Amino acid sequence: MPEITSEQLARLVNGTLTGDGARRLTALAPLESASSDCVSFLANAKYAQQLSQTSAGVVLVARGVVREGGDYIQTDDPYSAFVTTLEYFNPAMEPSAGIHPSASIDASAVVGKDVAIGPHCVVEANAEIADGAMLEAQVYVGRGAKVGRKSHLHPNVSIRHGCVIGERVIIHCGTVVGSDGFGFAPEKGKFRKIPQVGNVVIEDDVEIGANTTIDRATMGETRIGCGTKIDNLVQIAHNVKIGKHCVIAAQAGISGSTQFGDYCRVGGQAGFIGHIKIGDGAAFGAQSGIASDVGAGEILSGSPARPHGLWKRIEATVPRLPELLRRVKRIEEHLGLKEPAKEERVER
Amino acid sequence: MPEITSEQLARLVNGTLTGDGARRLTALAPLESASSDCVSFLANAKYAQQLSQTSAGVVLVARGVVREGGDYIQTDDPYSAFVTTLEYFNPAMEPSAGIHPSASIDASAVVGKDVAIGPHCVVEANAEIADGAMLEAQVYVGRGAKVGRKSHLHPNVSIRHGCVIGERVIIHCGTVVGSDGFGFAPEKGKFRKIPQVGNVVIEDDVEIGANTTIDRATMGETRIGCGTKIDNLVQIAHNVKIGKHCVIAAQAGISGSTQFGDYCRVGGQAGFIGHIKIGDGAAFGAQSGIASDVGAGEILSGSPARPHGLWKRIEATVPRLPELLRRVKRIEEHLGLKEPAKEERVER
Amino acid sequence: MPEITSEQLARLVNGTLTGDGARRLTALAPLESASSDCVSFLANAKYAQQLSQTSAGVVLVARGVVREGGDYIQTDDPYSAFVTTLEYFNPAMEPSAGIHPSASIDASAVVGKDVAIGPHCVVEANAEIADGAMLEAQVYVGRGAKVGRKSHLHPNVSIRHGCVIGERVIIHCGTVVGSDGFGFAPEKGKFRKIPQVGNVVIEDDVEIGANTTIDRATMGETRIGCGTKIDNLVQIAHNVKIGKHCVIAAQAGISGSTQFGDYCRVGGQAGFIGHIKIGDGAAFGAQSGIASDVGAGEILSGSPARPHGLWKRIEATVPRLPELLRRVKRIEEHLGLKEPAKEERVER
Repeated sequence: MPEITSEQLARLVNGTLTGDGARRLTALAPLESASSDCVSFLANAKYAQQLSQTSAGVVLVARGVVREGGDYIQTDDPYSAFVTTLEYFNPAMEPSAGIHPSASIDASAVVGKDVAIGPHCVVEANAEIADGAMLEAQVYVGRGAKVGRKSHLHPNVSIRHGCVIGERVIIHCGTVVGSDGFGFAPEKGKFRKIPQVGNVVIEDDVEIGANTTIDRATMGETRIGCGTKIDNLVQIAHNVKIGKHCVIAAQAGISGSTQFGDYCRVGGQAGFIGHIKIGDGAAFGAQSGIASDVGAGEILSGSPARPHGLWKRIEATVPRLPELLRRVKRIEEHLGLKEPAKEERVER
Repeated sequence: MPEITSEQLARLVNGTLTGDGARRLTALAPLESASSDCVSFLANAKYAQQLSQTSAGVVLVARGVVREGGDYIQTDDPYSAFVTTLEYFNPAMEPSAGIHPSASIDASAVVGKDVAIGPHCVVEANAEIADGAMLEAQVYVGRGAKVGRKSHLHPNVSIRHGCVIGERVIIHCGTVVGSDGFGFAPEKGKFRKIPQVGNVVIEDDVEIGANTTIDRATMGETRIGCGTKIDNLVQIAHNVKIGKHCVIAAQAGISGSTQFGDYCRVGGQAGFIGHIKIGDGAAFGAQSGIASDVGAGEILSGSPARPHGLWKRIEATVPRLPELLRRVKRIEEHLGLKEPAKEERVER
Repeated sequence: MPEITSEQLARLVNGTLTGDGARRLTALAPLESASSDCVSFLANAKYAQQLSQTSAGVVLVARGVVREGGDYIQTDDPYSAFVTTLEYFNPAMEPSAGIHPSASIDASAVVGKDVAIGPHCVVEANAEIADGAMLEAQVYVGRGAKVGRKSHLHPNVSIRHGCVIGERVIIHCGTVVGSDGFGFAPEKGKFRKIPQVGNVVIEDDVEIGANTTIDRATMGETRIGCGTKIDNLVQIAHNVKIGKHCVIAAQAGISGSTQFGDYCRVGGQAGFIGHIKIGDGAAFGAQSGIASDVGAGEILSGSPARPHGLWKRIEATVPRLPELLRRVKRIEEHLGLKEPAKEERVER
């Protein structure tokens, strides 16, 4: 296990140590469970009272924060310092390069240097696996598909033919890239399949969670912009374009041909109709339902989605609906106005 | 790549050409990106103004539509003509029949003629794979399961024991057919598993998206009617019956024993309670929640679902709730009526 | 096929037989389709009129219930008796222990007695598969992961490194345990991945459906309590804790660090925000959305979730909103009060 002294740690995170520079630290732990050989961190001022109670050897804090009676390291961004420390104590497993003898790799596939291909993987004709890429066990890469440099596909991932995965992309178990878009033409009482002849392009530094599905385009491409992060069980339909550095939480669904700008944030289980445009930096609450274009920077909640502030005011009023009905009835009685007959009331 | 002349294309789509019959066409493209060696199409009158701007060599249009200053083919159904043309330029990959040496096929399994079974597939005891079926890589077919003629299972599909897949069925990557239904009997503070001893029957010409789950029946069968199309990440619980030619969009969920008629349409992320009946041709908005029987042809939206027209009128009124509350208060003040005390207001 | 006499069956289910003890029974079937050599059952008084019409040889009923003109067995709990009978007629397939030659098992893995490992499975370094465990085809078990005694992993399941699966756990096809939690720190206009170095612990007697995803903890563990049952396509995020004997229906999603007590029930497609606490025995309607702590025994519905009774009263009033608006307008006209101008009405 890696070890570090307080002084070395302060240097690693560009911080200022107050306390014993020779203290040996062997792990990172939350404030409440950290012992004297642990680093801990206070990233959120809300938990400041835990600072006085922790047994941690040293605590990463923001500039200006002081830990009474214990060692601490002030940094500009304690959350970044936490991530750096977490990485230090948990170095990424270097895959041992090499192709497992049980992998099935077509003779026409191009496999780069320092590639790891695990047991029972399948790489079809004319596929390309670039230098340093890692395919864990049971991965499928279809004919002509490309996996970029240093990308990492976890077990049971399926990349269908012709799809393009950029560099340093991470795709978690069970995710499907390039399944057919859902397109059918009604014809004589049946549905006729519309061939889905486009592909999917995943740009560099994208991470995609487990059991997510990204459909290939009918024609052209479905595209996920660089740096975007997609969670588990997300549905991305054919011809969708997602911009750069977006975040899409679990179980969200985006219908066909919808286009997102950059830096958008989508809450869990949110749903988007097809063929709409979402501006840069727009954000969407969990379970929201979006059925029309959204401007840059808008924040929407609810289904159908409304501006977040309005949605909050409406939701504060909704529980008062039965009361409101009683009050209107009382006014009508007071005025001698007849209540509408039942059949006039509830519309169909 | 396939090539076709305008005259040949007009014959292929049963259309009437206006323009140069000898023009060579090498691809199909949308109006905005088509060049002079491309076919394009105008299926929706909404985009008619693009017709005057496109560089396409020839455009598929409806009877009665004219393209000024360019070649065009009039057809009864330009959308069908588009699909036919798309198929012409993108002929389906003929799987090379044959069983990959790494596939694990039980000696008692019955494998028909012209079957393709890809690397690392598993076909268990007494399973049957009919003529012309294609199992891509890493497919699992459990004991006694049947895959019908010309059906196509994509990588990482799991068909569990005893399930029956019809003819010309397409199942995309990662989908699970025949997992146990979710059934437990509470007993002495624990849950006792109810054995799920039925199966799943998928009728002919069904297509199922990626990472969808269809549970086997407790007793009897879960059944998907012929021609029905199911998108990605859909949940179909035990003993559900879906009729013929239904369309079920991504992430919808249907609870146990619910029965659908034919030609129903289900929007994305819609949810259905168990043990209800849905009439032929009923349609459901995205994110709708359905908790009781639905008549034939009904169109419902919202959660809880209401008739679509009523739902639209309600949703138009909802943003006016805070205003409505203020108006009632003003009336009460005008009449000298006291507003209810806070504790009378919000009910629990 | 197993066979049993009425008398033997009465003894098996601790019941009291009225009728012919020598009757031979060969199957279990629902009341409407049971023939004279079948057992059937009446577990729900709602279906009592079917009792007089069924052709079943014998029917399992509750104490006090009488079947006129036919044999029956009274038991304390006819639903339990039904499950016992279903198990009798459908004995669990005993896996034939043994390791398929195509499985790839690291030399450092520890494999117990009577273990079944199917074709194309992968068991990585230092993993442990305990006595009597069954890995069906194409299962992945990562380095250092543990699968407990008599646990059963269905095809295409992925258990990532370091995760711990208890005893008698059942995990259905395509489910992923231990994918990385969705954690990123914004840094200079990009997202920096936060290493996810914790694991997932699944306690004894848990059952997990198909294509579900359970993420590993950032630090520490994600934990599913003993006896809990999770359906298909459920998302469980990093550091979530689920108590004992909970039931979570399909497509529900639980965000990071949320903690459930014991005996909670979650409806399909329900969603939970992160970092909240749910008390023992709380229950949640389908499609509900929960954004704050919930006390023990509370029953919530709707999104945002409200106490079930209030939610029902609100939903009964919602369709009357357009009517309510008209009534308020009529009162204002009656009083000569001016309706608010349009720009005052709908808030943003």
